[in-house]
Amino acid sequence: MFEGIIENVRTNSPLVHCITNYVTVNDVANMVLAIGASPIMADDEKDAVDITAICTGLDINIGTLNSRTIKTMYKAGKRANELNHPVILDPVGAGASKLRTQTTLGLINKIHFDVVRGNVSEIKTIYNGSGKTSGVDASIEDVVTDKNLMDSVAFAKNLSKKLNTIIAITGAIDIVTDGNKSYVIRNGHPLMSRITGSGCMLTAVIDAFICANPDRKLDATACAVSVMGICGQKAFEKGKAKSGSDESCGTGTFRALMIDEMSLMTSSKFEENKKIEIL
Amino acid sequence: MFEGIIENVRTNSPLVHCITNYVTVNDVANMVLAIGASPIMADDEKDAVDITAICTGLDINIGTLNSRTIKTMYKAGKRANELNHPVILDPVGAGASKLRTQTTLGLINKIHFDVVRGNVSEIKTIYNGSGKTSGVDASIEDVVTDKNLMDSVAFAKNLSKKLNTIIAITGAIDIVTDGNKSYVIRNGHPLMSRITGSGCMLTAVIDAFICANPDRKLDATACAVSVMGICGQKAFEKGKAKSGSDESCGTGTFRALMIDEMSLMTSSKFEENKKIEIL
Amino acid sequence: MFEGIIENVRTNSPLVHCITNYVTVNDVANMVLAIGASPIMADDEKDAVDITAICTGLDINIGTLNSRTIKTMYKAGKRANELNHPVILDPVGAGASKLRTQTTLGLINKIHFDVVRGNVSEIKTIYNGSGKTSGVDASIEDVVTDKNLMDSVAFAKNLSKKLNTIIAITGAIDIVTDGNKSYVIRNGHPLMSRITGSGCMLTAVIDAFICANPDRKLDATACAVSVMGICGQKAFEKGKAKSGSDESCGTGTFRALMIDEMSLMTSSKFEENKKIEIL
Repeated sequence: MFEGIIENVRTNSPLVHCITNYVTVNDVANMVLAIGASPIMADDEKDAVDITAICTGLDINIGTLNSRTIKTMYKAGKRANELNHPVILDPVGAGASKLRTQTTLGLINKIHFDVVRGNVSEIKTIYNGSGKTSGVDASIEDVVTDKNLMDSVAFAKNLSKKLNTIIAITGAIDIVTDGNKSYVIRNGHPLMSRITGSGCMLTAVIDAFICANPDRKLDATACAVSVMGICGQKAFEKGKAKSGSDESCGTGTFRALMIDEMSLMTSSKFEENKKIEIL
Repeated sequence: MFEGIIENVRTNSPLVHCITNYVTVNDVANMVLAIGASPIMADDEKDAVDITAICTGLDINIGTLNSRTIKTMYKAGKRANELNHPVILDPVGAGASKLRTQTTLGLINKIHFDVVRGNVSEIKTIYNGSGKTSGVDASIEDVVTDKNLMDSVAFAKNLSKKLNTIIAITGAIDIVTDGNKSYVIRNGHPLMSRITGSGCMLTAVIDAFICANPDRKLDATACAVSVMGICGQKAFEKGKAKSGSDESCGTGTFRALMIDEMSLMTSSKFEENKKIEIL
Repeated sequence: MFEGIIENVRTNSPLVHCITNYVTVNDVANMVLAIGASPIMADDEKDAVDITAICTGLDINIGTLNSRTIKTMYKAGKRANELNHPVILDPVGAGASKLRTQTTLGLINKIHFDVVRGNVSEIKTIYNGSGKTSGVDASIEDVVTDKNLMDSVAFAKNLSKKLNTIIAITGAIDIVTDGNKSYVIRNGHPLMSRITGSGCMLTAVIDAFICANPDRKLDATACAVSVMGICGQKAFEKGKAKSGSDESCGTGTFRALMIDEMSLMTSSKFEENKKIEIL
C-alpha cells in the first residue's frame, strides 16, 4: 500500500511553495528539507505567482494571516490549480476568530485543495461554518477518542465527499479519508502537542508526499501522518535516553530530535513502526 | 510567598495572545508551551480583537514593529484592558529608534500594563522619554551592579508608582517591584545574553504566570524571572557536561536546553535554586 | 593573512542591522551572537533609518521580500552608504521570480555593496540580468566543480570588477574575489544544504567580519566563509558521535551544533582546519 512512497519523496525532491505563518516557518522549512524535499517561502502577491509556477506544490497555512498575505493565498492557490499542482490547506485557528474562519471558508470555496489537514475543531469549523477552537488547539469536547471514533470517521468522510478533498484530522488519534477509504493512525507522542508547529510541519510534509506521489494521494497522506508520528515516538525515546536516568525528554531537545528523525527516516523504519488501520 | 505559583500555571494553562517580533517568536511560543501554558500569535487588526477576547492574557512585544502591527497593539491592548486581562509590555529597543521610543510611550499612555519588562536602558527610556539603548541590549553605563543597586531599585520603584505598573528590569541582576515591595533576583547565566530572545521569552512567561496567579502578580512576576534564570543555570551545567571535557556549552545547544529546563521545571527545583532577596 | 580577524569580531562586537527574511531570521540572529557580534532586526521604513545609524553594518537579505520591506531596503542601504557602513547583499532566490531578480538588480544599481554573497545561480542572475534559480538553491547545471573552477573564478572576477564589489559564490566549493585576488575555499559539509539558512547565516556573519575588519574586507570575507564551513564539518563530526554507532547526524541536531561551533570558534581552530587556496 505504501511501497515506494518515502523513496519517491527523496528521489523526486519536490519544491514546495509555502505561504505560512512566521511562528513555525523555520521548523516547516527544516522538516521539508529533512524528508528530502525543498521548501520556498514567498508571501507577496507579486512574488508568489512566479514562485508557485516553478514549484511542484503549494502549502497554504493561515496562521498569522493578514490582509496582504490573504490576497496572496488566493492568487497562488488559483495559479496552482491552473497548473494542476497539489495544494494543501492548514486552517490554523479556524473557529478562533472571524477572520480565520472566513478566510478558511473563502479559500475552500475558490480553490480546490487536494488535502485539508487540521485539528478536529478546525475541521468541524469548516463543516459547520463556525466554531469554538481553543486558540490553535482543539477544544476538549471535540477530541477524537476511541468512543467517538466511528462518528468522527463518518463526519470526516462526509466532509471529504462534500468538498472532494482528502481530509486529515490529526491529534492523539488521526483520521485520513477521501470519503471512500479511511485510515485511522495511532502513531505519535503527547509531547508533539507541547511544541509549536507539529501540525504546520506535518501539513508541509504531506504536501511534499503528495507532490512526489501524485497518483496515490490518499496513501501518501496517511503515510506522511504516520511517519510524523513515528518521528515523535522515536524523538521521545532518544531524548529520554539522552537526558539521564530520572528525567523525561525536555521539549527543546524533543523538537530538534523530531527533525533528526525525519532526516533519518527510511521505509523500513516506517514499516516496522506504523500503526495504520483501514476502515 | 511563592507556593503554588508554578502549579497554577500548569493547571490553569492560560492562553496567551502574543503580538511579538518575528525574530524570536518561535522560541517564545515554545517557552510558553514548556511551562504549561498555550500561546497564540495574531498581529492583524481584524484577527487580533477576536483572539484577544478568547485568551486569558496579552503580551505586546515591539521588536520588528511596523505601522500595521502597531495599530494592532493599540486595539488589542484596549480590548484586553476592557476585559481585565493581564497585559504585559516588552519595549524591545526603546531608546534605539524614535519609532520604538514613541510607540512605547504611546502604548503606556493609552493602555494599562500590569507589568513592563525590559533591560535597564529600555526602562530608563520610558522614564526619561528618550534613551540611548545599544540596539536591543542595555548600554554598558546603564547596567545594574551591586554598586548602583539601591539607586536602581529606587528608580524602578519611582517608575512603578508613576505608571501604576509592576516594573521588571532584567540583566545580570534583576529587579522586580510594584513600587512598595521589591525583589532583587540573582539567578541566570551570562550565556542567556548570547542567544537571541531570552528577554522576549521571559516576558511571555511572566504573562502566563500572572494570568494563572491574578491575585499575586508581583510574586508571580518575581517567580517567573527567577525560574527563567534557573533554566539558564541548569541549561549551562547540562550543556557543559554534554559537550565533553574541555569545552563549554555552545549557544545552539544552550538554547534548546533552556526550553528543556522550562518544560521540566518544578516547584521544588525552584525552591532549591531561587536567589531572591526582598527589599 | 588572516591573523587577528576572528579576535577583532569578538573584541569589537559590531552591531549588525539585518533586514532579512522571517524563515531563517532566528538562526541569523543566533549565529551573529555566536561569533561575538550583535544583531538587530528592523524592517520598517520609519524604524530602519534610525537603526541603520546606530549600527556598524547592514545586511540586506531579500528572502520573503514584500513591497513594504523593499522600500526599507533602499532607504537603509542609502543611509548606510552615506555613513560608510559595510553593506552586504544576499540575493535569495534571484532568478526564481521577477520580483526577486528586479529587486536584486535595482538594489545593486542604487546601493554600493561591499560584498554580495549568493549561490552560483543567484550570482549568475545578477550578471545576466535574468536567471533560472531552482527555488532558493542553485541549478544543477550552474554548480561550481573542479572542472569548471577556472571559468567560475574568471566569471566571479569579472562581475566583481564590474560592480566594484567583493563577490562570494558559495556551495560545495566557494569562491571569494575582489576582482584581483581570489580565494577558493573547500571547507563545509553537505548537510549544510539540508538545513535552511546556511547561506543567510553566512551572509550576516560576513557582515560582522567586515565590520570588525574594515581595512581587510576581502580576507575577512574569505575567513568568514571558511569559518562557517569549519562549523559545518565539526558539527557533523560531533553529531555523528552523539547519535550512536549506526546512524549519521540528524539535521535538527546538526543545526544546533553549527551554532555551537560558531560560539566556540577560535583562531587556532580556524588555522588548523582552513582549506583556503589563493588564485
